Amino acid sequence: MLTKVMHAIQDEYPDDFAWCYGCGKLNKEGNHFRTGWQGEETVTFFEPAEKYTAIPGFVYGGAIASLVDCHGTGSCSLALHRKNGHEPGSGEVPPRFVTASLNVDYLKPTPQGTVLKAVGKVEEIHPKKWKVSIEVFAGEILCATGEVVGVVMPVTFTQK
Amino acid sequence: MLTKVMHAIQDEYPDDFAWCYGCGKLNKEGNHFRTGWQGEETVTFFEPAEKYTAIPGFVYGGAIASLVDCHGTGSCSLALHRKNGHEPGSGEVPPRFVTASLNVDYLKPTPQGTVLKAVGKVEEIHPKKWKVSIEVFAGEILCATGEVVGVVMPVTFTQK
Repeated sequence: MLTKVMHAIQDEYPDDFAWCYGCGKLNKEGNHFRTGWQGEETVTFFEPAEKYTAIPGFVYGGAIASLVDCHGTGSCSLALHRKNGHEPGSGEVPPRFVTASLNVDYLKPTPQGTVLKAVGKVEEIHPKKWKVSIEVFAGEILCATGEVVGVVMPVTFTQK
Repeated sequence: MLTKVMHAIQDEYPDDFAWCYGCGKLNKEGNHFRTGWQGEETVTFFEPAEKYTAIPGFVYGGAIASLVDCHGTGSCSLALHRKNGHEPGSGEVPPRFVTASLNVDYLKPTPQGTVLKAVGKVEEIHPKKWKVSIEVFAGEILCATGEVVGVVMPVTFTQK
């Protein structure tokens, strides 16, 4: 199974927006999620560190929520970037999204020691508001489903 | 403002179930969320570490999802424990819940450097399935709302 994204959208976030604990390339303690296209779907791979335990042997649901969250905003960014005529790897600065809402349904206990794969389908519901439907697999097992609504980052995020 | 829970339900989870990254007292790298009663509501306080950045100055949404998640399962446990005639601090082993579903709506950017307070209202929807409605405040600002449906931990979680 392919477990690496070649051209991730997060690689091209400007440095000011690359500190996210989930997906920022500059956050040394973060998860470094990387999200890219696989055909018309989006993918993010994640091998949770051992610290992300729920009950010993199973992955912490909050880590899965983090995966769903950043996979969602990354997928929104990929989709709007493509709509604007760009693909990750082209060097164009992509739009940055924030999460408006996050939903996760936990279907099965998620085993530790396995690479997780989040797969997303992106839908535009407004030029600045996109919805991503997400499935999280551990190997062949569908462990969780999720939905993220992302909005283009409002100016309030850059004015503290 | 009171920012500490005196008697937290997580303090009484058996050691085998105290490894959760969000709320396990034995997980050295975790968040150590502690959830207790405040009248008829449940509360959890959280001062996010600096690593939990979204955009510099603002808290990572995945960390808020983690707070909502563990506050939810902890609140379910508190409520069923009370229904069974026990309060945290009594020394009785409380029931342990897992998350069936997690929803978070992000209303406002959450500032870093502030103690967050999750407040929950718990409702029984089945003897083994409880729902928690949650508000997350940074000071006086309502930054996020959430809902967790928790179920009493199924036996599959202790049989790998």
